[in-house]
Amino acid sequence: MPTILQKYGGSSVADADRIKHVARRISRSYEGGNKVVAVVSAMGDTTDHLIDLAHQVSPSPAPREMDLLLSTGELISCTLVAMALHELGHQAVSLSGGQAGIQTDAAHTRARITGLDPKRIQRELEQGRIVIVAGFQGVTEDMDVTTLGRGASDLTAVALAIGLGAERCEIYTDVEGIHTADPRLVPGARKLKEIGFDEMLELANYGAKMQPRSIELAAAYNMPVLVSSTFVEAPGTLIHGGAAMEVRNKVAGVAADRNVAKITVLGVPDRPGIAASVFEPLARVGISVDTIVQNASVERLTDLTFTTTRTDAQRAMEVVEPVAREIGARGCASAQDLAKVSIVGTGMQNAPGYAATMFRALYEAGINIEMITTSEIRITCIIAEAKVPEAVRALHDAFQLEKE
Amino acid sequence: MPTILQKYGGSSVADADRIKHVARRISRSYEGGNKVVAVVSAMGDTTDHLIDLAHQVSPSPAPREMDLLLSTGELISCTLVAMALHELGHQAVSLSGGQAGIQTDAAHTRARITGLDPKRIQRELEQGRIVIVAGFQGVTEDMDVTTLGRGASDLTAVALAIGLGAERCEIYTDVEGIHTADPRLVPGARKLKEIGFDEMLELANYGAKMQPRSIELAAAYNMPVLVSSTFVEAPGTLIHGGAAMEVRNKVAGVAADRNVAKITVLGVPDRPGIAASVFEPLARVGISVDTIVQNASVERLTDLTFTTTRTDAQRAMEVVEPVAREIGARGCASAQDLAKVSIVGTGMQNAPGYAATMFRALYEAGINIEMITTSEIRITCIIAEAKVPEAVRALHDAFQLEKE
Repeated sequence: MPTILQKYGGSSVADADRIKHVARRISRSYEGGNKVVAVVSAMGDTTDHLIDLAHQVSPSPAPREMDLLLSTGELISCTLVAMALHELGHQAVSLSGGQAGIQTDAAHTRARITGLDPKRIQRELEQGRIVIVAGFQGVTEDMDVTTLGRGASDLTAVALAIGLGAERCEIYTDVEGIHTADPRLVPGARKLKEIGFDEMLELANYGAKMQPRSIELAAAYNMPVLVSSTFVEAPGTLIHGGAAMEVRNKVAGVAADRNVAKITVLGVPDRPGIAASVFEPLARVGISVDTIVQNASVERLTDLTFTTTRTDAQRAMEVVEPVAREIGARGCASAQDLAKVSIVGTGMQNAPGYAATMFRALYEAGINIEMITTSEIRITCIIAEAKVPEAVRALHDAFQLEKE
Repeated sequence: MPTILQKYGGSSVADADRIKHVARRISRSYEGGNKVVAVVSAMGDTTDHLIDLAHQVSPSPAPREMDLLLSTGELISCTLVAMALHELGHQAVSLSGGQAGIQTDAAHTRARITGLDPKRIQRELEQGRIVIVAGFQGVTEDMDVTTLGRGASDLTAVALAIGLGAERCEIYTDVEGIHTADPRLVPGARKLKEIGFDEMLELANYGAKMQPRSIELAAAYNMPVLVSSTFVEAPGTLIHGGAAMEVRNKVAGVAADRNVAKITVLGVPDRPGIAASVFEPLARVGISVDTIVQNASVERLTDLTFTTTRTDAQRAMEVVEPVAREIGARGCASAQDLAKVSIVGTGMQNAPGYAATMFRALYEAGINIEMITTSEIRITCIIAEAKVPEAVRALHDAFQLEKE
């Protein structure tokens, strides 16, 4: 009997009616003659509500306590889904991350999965039960509850699919699959039938709705992932290792990420060691820096610009300002209202012309490019946030993504 | 260094401000040079909210899932109390029932504690940490989460006090202690300085605010329990084994329990085995029957009356009606608007006159007694619920409980 691994996101279990709908969906897979394990996220805005509660008590709650607190969100939703399955006449059992055998390191709020012991799940499946697992969480050797980072129920699902030898991992969400661009921005955006792991990773990192670490894990074990809608009956997008060949020589999609801030250190003396003196203190406080650009030096002075998430920008300025004074820079400036737009596709590897087409399309749409960064299969431009809808539409048109 | 065991109820941690207050209170005990373990209940109405969520999904949720669901309430409050302690500059750690070593049987929603392994708590205490434990919950051998029944955070606290060798168990709540009667009903009600385990058990079973099983456990291990207010600085009531001697020959207090329904089987043929045929089916579905009265037989017919909680009354009628038909009874009747008032005191043992004084006091207050039941140290009358305030006041006066 094949094992099916499904994951339902927070909007799919946002209230009692949706939970009943999810239960019917799970029930159908079970009645199709499969062993079924479903991973669920916390209901709707439960996690935000818990974070708010914590901040009422402490401005910077301890990560260990935060993890035990936040883990309750997924416990609540997984028990409710199990109850809804009982109402449909099925045997179902809900398991916490720890009970499901998700073992992690002790890096609270962003723990890494270090092992998986699916004995309990297997025992429940053998007894004919449907197993509902609380996503996003695991336990340390010490039985302390950890969480795996925002959006990490995807990661739980992929890890369990691998550990249980499922044929594929099905991610159910509020979109119908992975599109060539955000359909809310581009009416002609086309749902992709399939996409390669590499491309999906770039899309996920640059705005599409899936947790990048879960794609990396799926890629490492070559576990196919199907992304489709909880609410609409339609084929989704299959993310797999074999897809790259077919879509080669094409841009797969356009992604946008609005959570971008820019910090510039102005008039930096151009001498060795300056970059290290700026970025080491940022790394020490855990601020992750994305794009870095350093202008050509004029009269031995240069401007050093980097981007962070908007969430980290304030803290980054607090770290960088004293450093700027120390190294004799003229000052610091920051801008919060930025975004990234990216084109992604294995077809771009070693093929000229994609960057030029991208820059021209943005130019013709009257959009100024602030910074540029590229990977093997991605070109990203940093632009004003207000211009995101126009930029995505212009790029979608320029690369003719509405065509199959 | 002595170990202090404290327990804070749901109203004591109902919001962020109260949680901070509780943290300050715990902090004071810690700074007084003690090892401190605090057990907390779920915030305010969290448990009711979770029960409501479950009922939106399923009319009769499975007990196992219900337990995992409800256990989240205490996890939330214990992490928040730990965070509030961090804000006060203390090292604190929150533990689930399972982490705290509370082992139970698998009787979900009303599990019994089968063992206690306080290694983790002891290790945290030795490292100078304050330990906050989620009340009301434990784990089975299988690591399934169980709950110990309504109000069972008291039980968690007493069990840990015993297991950790604490000098006493301090229960903090929204009242200042145990009173001679409910102060909301009797303005002259007096707070007791101390009370014996036996008396407290009767008071708790008949309306006072403490979980009876926790008193039984404290009595079995002779663990003194101090009940006092979270919010008011005042000495509370010490429940202990040595108190009974001092208050002998006195009524300790008046208790009332409003959750009473009465079911009467009318015109029952008076022959052997009838009582068993009525009460066995009730026991099988887990309905607990309290007082039972059978009238003297008239023409070989009798009326059989018993009480249950109001919550069970509907279900009890459904069980009893077919039985009544089978045994040839005339019919069934039920009344929901009843209550119990009790006087409790070791002084009543083998001493005449208490019952007579009680019945006269109620008679003079114009209150009809429907049924009577007694224990060694308690006399209970079942009366109309609407008469509870007058009855309690009349009994408090009759036994002069306002006097020390």
